[in-house]
Amino acid sequence: MNLDVKDIYKDVKSYIGKEVTLQGWIRNHRKQKEFGFIDFSDGTCFKHIQLVYDNKLDSFEEIQKFHNGSAITVIGLVIESVGGGQDIEVSVKEIRLEGDCPEDYPMQPKKHSVEFLREQAYLRPRTNLFQAVFRIRSVTAEAIHKYFQDRGYVYFHAPFFTASDCEGAGEMFRVTTQDLDKIAKTGKVNEDDELFGRTVGLTVSGQLEAETFATAFKKTYTFGPTFRAENSNTKFHANEFWMIEPEVAFCDLEGIMDIEEECLKYVITYVLEHCKDEMSFLDKFIEKGLLDKLTKLINSKFTRVSHEEVITILKEAKNKGQKFEFEPEYGEDIAKEHEKYITEYFNGPVFITNWPKDIKSFYMKLNPDGKTVAAADLEVPGVGELMGGSQREDDYDKLIARMDELNMDNETYYWYTNLRKYGSCIHSGFGIGFERLLMYITGVDNIRDVIPYPRTPGNCEF
Amino acid sequence: MNLDVKDIYKDVKSYIGKEVTLQGWIRNHRKQKEFGFIDFSDGTCFKHIQLVYDNKLDSFEEIQKFHNGSAITVIGLVIESVGGGQDIEVSVKEIRLEGDCPEDYPMQPKKHSVEFLREQAYLRPRTNLFQAVFRIRSVTAEAIHKYFQDRGYVYFHAPFFTASDCEGAGEMFRVTTQDLDKIAKTGKVNEDDELFGRTVGLTVSGQLEAETFATAFKKTYTFGPTFRAENSNTKFHANEFWMIEPEVAFCDLEGIMDIEEECLKYVITYVLEHCKDEMSFLDKFIEKGLLDKLTKLINSKFTRVSHEEVITILKEAKNKGQKFEFEPEYGEDIAKEHEKYITEYFNGPVFITNWPKDIKSFYMKLNPDGKTVAAADLEVPGVGELMGGSQREDDYDKLIARMDELNMDNETYYWYTNLRKYGSCIHSGFGIGFERLLMYITGVDNIRDVIPYPRTPGNCEF
Repeated sequence: MNLDVKDIYKDVKSYIGKEVTLQGWIRNHRKQKEFGFIDFSDGTCFKHIQLVYDNKLDSFEEIQKFHNGSAITVIGLVIESVGGGQDIEVSVKEIRLEGDCPEDYPMQPKKHSVEFLREQAYLRPRTNLFQAVFRIRSVTAEAIHKYFQDRGYVYFHAPFFTASDCEGAGEMFRVTTQDLDKIAKTGKVNEDDELFGRTVGLTVSGQLEAETFATAFKKTYTFGPTFRAENSNTKFHANEFWMIEPEVAFCDLEGIMDIEEECLKYVITYVLEHCKDEMSFLDKFIEKGLLDKLTKLINSKFTRVSHEEVITILKEAKNKGQKFEFEPEYGEDIAKEHEKYITEYFNGPVFITNWPKDIKSFYMKLNPDGKTVAAADLEVPGVGELMGGSQREDDYDKLIARMDELNMDNETYYWYTNLRKYGSCIHSGFGIGFERLLMYITGVDNIRDVIPYPRTPGNCEF
Repeated sequence: MNLDVKDIYKDVKSYIGKEVTLQGWIRNHRKQKEFGFIDFSDGTCFKHIQLVYDNKLDSFEEIQKFHNGSAITVIGLVIESVGGGQDIEVSVKEIRLEGDCPEDYPMQPKKHSVEFLREQAYLRPRTNLFQAVFRIRSVTAEAIHKYFQDRGYVYFHAPFFTASDCEGAGEMFRVTTQDLDKIAKTGKVNEDDELFGRTVGLTVSGQLEAETFATAFKKTYTFGPTFRAENSNTKFHANEFWMIEPEVAFCDLEGIMDIEEECLKYVITYVLEHCKDEMSFLDKFIEKGLLDKLTKLINSKFTRVSHEEVITILKEAKNKGQKFEFEPEYGEDIAKEHEKYITEYFNGPVFITNWPKDIKSFYMKLNPDGKTVAAADLEVPGVGELMGGSQREDDYDKLIARMDELNMDNETYYWYTNLRKYGSCIHSGFGIGFERLLMYITGVDNIRDVIPYPRTPGNCEF
């Protein structure tokens, strides 16, 4: 294997004056009469490297014909750059064309709209923006694994085919092995034709199953895809996305908020350290002030305040003249505009705790007041909810009572409720939408641009 | 958060004589008149710790009533053990019952069959076998991520909903948002009811999409679930399983075999180092000689031999009296018994290279002979094929010709074939079935026992 461009930038000084062999692609080719300049990238780091060749080379004229997008092997000398804009460049001794690229190549070196690039999703990783975004996606995933693995969490792979619907809310995709044409023809749905003996759904959350691991390994986390059949065409919704769902036994709501805060700060710090060039680019071209925003978050102490207190603050603000479209009310959900006001009020991230039970999930721990549950949503300035966690209901009777109230089928969930029978303990967990986190970290404002091949209503290409 | 048992075992000496608070579960409770012994686990490491209490405690009689499986908080003194079988134990000052466990608890401390444990899949992570297997699953995943991330590979998340069928072979699950009852009633399949505008399948491989990342980032890998609708009830088949699919640009078949060999050795070494207790347990109770087998693999040089040479060896063996059920033939696939013979013949792992094109996938690089492709299957003693890799066809015309031969729909794959138009380069990749690797590492012989909640024909519980 030949050298990576990344290797050179890691230790520039030791390479100056050395001959190197590189393989990669021509991003831009500028030709002059006596010289040629190739903006060269091999994709191993965000930075490109400039190749300079002159007409003393026998192959000068041949090289001048190389198109943008072509794959090449180059042998040359690393030298200090004479021109501005870069520290080093490669003085070419030889360039071999590996794969040509016609002039109708869609990724010519000019500004493309994100909409155009979505249509060219298979080529967009070759652009600066997506080199940055998808490398950050990879490094963020690495940081998440590292955070949990270093702390002894067992990585749990939740099943994808499932009969349960964790949130009781999200529409599930249905998976079938029946022939739809046969159903139409015979006028009969035939469960015998189902591989699993019944139609099944695609998981919307691995949390319930993760709890079975938490009560065996104490600390566990999922990191895998989840699916929603929602017909929502917004910047924030995709039909498949990745989630991280940690679960911790013998941990209460305060404890899980500690973990959430530490985890988020760890991941962001890791990305800032490992993706300096990518983050600078995004700060410059995608979200001005991005680096300041993230640095501020890392250095802030997250506020913890109850839902009730939040409503009181909002009501007081309204009395003092603050305009809200929606009326803040005790016992009710809070709107986007309220979230915004609260993070500005506390000038930083806010855990809103102890939510009215009726607007939260069945598995959340009922507080002694009988009205609220031990849940906490993390609201972050500029983005809204970034994580959601809760202490889980560990009392068998209370859990069953709540499921009955909601007309849930207890039989299906016997394995989940039984965890409260067999050595139950206080335990808590939270969820992070991976793409939402990426949007926050990169400043990219459309979920379609942080997923390599996004699946949204009407879109299943590539 | 309280101490983990793992922390104590990491630094036993410093804890002796210290008071600790632990939270976890009673795995076994042995009671004597004056003493009680609790086999205690908090799931943070494979090792349990023994709690000893005596009748000088006021709560002696209360503690004696605690059942197996109960969750407890214990405060006690770490002391050197007087009994055999362990180095240290905890002399109890106080035990608080967190969650009781009735006597009909299915996980009583006795030997259970794996079949019984599959029925109790939500509780089996509490047994020694599955504490070992699922922690190894987690650590193996960590090792895989670490191997690739440390070497600059970009982690790529392939899409799950897809219209393409990479292998052209595996049966795909069909995902629909149509109401099956409506189809039966109206006698009409209505694609307008589909969220994506058509029925889609669940991916059987992320390789094709990964190639789009390899030609942008040079090195990439997937690690995600894949799905097969096969109605196979064997020890080796599940309907959902995880795969790792690395792709490397500017890398030929020899290069990718180098990577495969290095990667496999790295991962196994990592697991052996990080899961010593778990691996010893499996060596003792699941596969005698497991540690020797793995150590031997790490220290062996993998043989590389062509399919043609393999057939010659097999034919010669047959002539010398070796019995085969299936006749080895040039140009044809090789059977399990042949694989076995070959790994024994070379006394170690064997890459079989340059396979007849007709029994391999369309995307593999056609060799100059026009008959074979630059593919390599890694055959490992005792398990058969563990990895499969190939150089990819990088010539546009040859790829299209091959797809035409196979009556594939070129239009659907325009984005894949276009990679050969826009700066094509030699590139290669391989696939690892994560569960097959786990079976090899753990010695567990049924895929149902290396997946937390396996999905197999007829089984979609939990």
